[in-house]
Amino acid sequence: MVALPEDEAAHLTRVLRLTAGERVVVFDGRGHEFDATVERAARSEAHVAIGRARLALREARVALTLAQAVLKSDKMDDVVRDAVMMGAAAIQPVVSARSEITLAALERGRRRERWQRIAVSSAKQCGRAVVPQVLDPAPFDVVVSPGPLGAAFMFVEPAAAEDVRPLAAISGAPPEEAAVFIGPEGGWAPEEIDRGAQSAHLVTLGPRTLRADAMAVVALSALFTIWGEF
Amino acid sequence: MVALPEDEAAHLTRVLRLTAGERVVVFDGRGHEFDATVERAARSEAHVAIGRARLALREARVALTLAQAVLKSDKMDDVVRDAVMMGAAAIQPVVSARSEITLAALERGRRRERWQRIAVSSAKQCGRAVVPQVLDPAPFDVVVSPGPLGAAFMFVEPAAAEDVRPLAAISGAPPEEAAVFIGPEGGWAPEEIDRGAQSAHLVTLGPRTLRADAMAVVALSALFTIWGEF
Repeated sequence: MVALPEDEAAHLTRVLRLTAGERVVVFDGRGHEFDATVERAARSEAHVAIGRARLALREARVALTLAQAVLKSDKMDDVVRDAVMMGAAAIQPVVSARSEITLAALERGRRRERWQRIAVSSAKQCGRAVVPQVLDPAPFDVVVSPGPLGAAFMFVEPAAAEDVRPLAAISGAPPEEAAVFIGPEGGWAPEEIDRGAQSAHLVTLGPRTLRADAMAVVALSALFTIWGEF
Repeated sequence: MVALPEDEAAHLTRVLRLTAGERVVVFDGRGHEFDATVERAARSEAHVAIGRARLALREARVALTLAQAVLKSDKMDDVVRDAVMMGAAAIQPVVSARSEITLAALERGRRRERWQRIAVSSAKQCGRAVVPQVLDPAPFDVVVSPGPLGAAFMFVEPAAAEDVRPLAAISGAPPEEAAVFIGPEGGWAPEEIDRGAQSAHLVTLGPRTLRADAMAVVALSALFTIWGEF
């Protein structure tokens, strides 16, 4: 018999209103899914008996980390939810030159913890058995600094630099890992683009202005299409 | 001197608070964009003097009609906004078997007119000089009936029928026109899929459950990637 985490127990008892004997599906967030039966359920405590393992959904072949500059208000919540739905393997919140919030404020607001809960909830909704990790928010320079990233893509406007390539120029076998950098509402600062160009491909989704909070889902859809994931 | 439509005049005077002599960019929604100067602006009336024509953004090479089953509450607003941003040429709202609203209710609520205003606003935001037309809502059978649609794609779950293909199976030169069918929250009914399969390719975005209101942006991103639009 296994005790569910407090959040999930509360969801089971108060939202789904399940009682002993009812059947559920549980997952450990690391790729394992099981049939289970509720044994005890009371307020914020729930125990289930684990049954047969289920065949979990295959994860994307490319382990993609979305490095997303933190957006205003609850837009970042939506991006985390969508990135999980699209199959990102991890989410790295980035504080960039034009982000309108500081690392200290993110920590005070326990935002990483909030985004991690959103990731759990989104994984459940879309049927993923793996919950992507939301990493500690970090400044752009720190995120981009570990040197050549292999398959790293920084999305910029077409005229942002000389060597910006259309997405169509990306080809070849899908990498094992990839990183995708998406800027904040005001875009990347010129010095960030210079810095990024040293370890990432500068790519563009064309001249139409996409909303900042829609960029990640469009970029991930496009890249996963190129890599044959759909 | 040209009078702006009432909505736009109100936006210019009350939101942007522009006055005579200030410079603006105007567009006719059919691909033409001009520099202009405000001549008179008072409450919901504004006149501008048209100046030089500007080079408008190129439209997508594939004229894509999004046939979207009407979603609940304001989710359909978001889909219209996103489809315009992604470059759809037209939007066909569809009432399907599992749509939770009737044609009569849509008409009473003047929803088409509302969606058309959202399309104008989204075109302005993303810099498109062409405003996609939002067509009159119609039942699925009527929309799908004109026979073979050439490049028509109906998005379904992988197990919805035997001949569902992954998106990666689509290849060949981009068509001049295309239609994309996206279902409502509850998905297409089996008889709709049978009917759709007669004039559209059944395609899937894989086994993850995508939110109904995210399907269009993902599908359009994927198709435009395949057709080299990005």
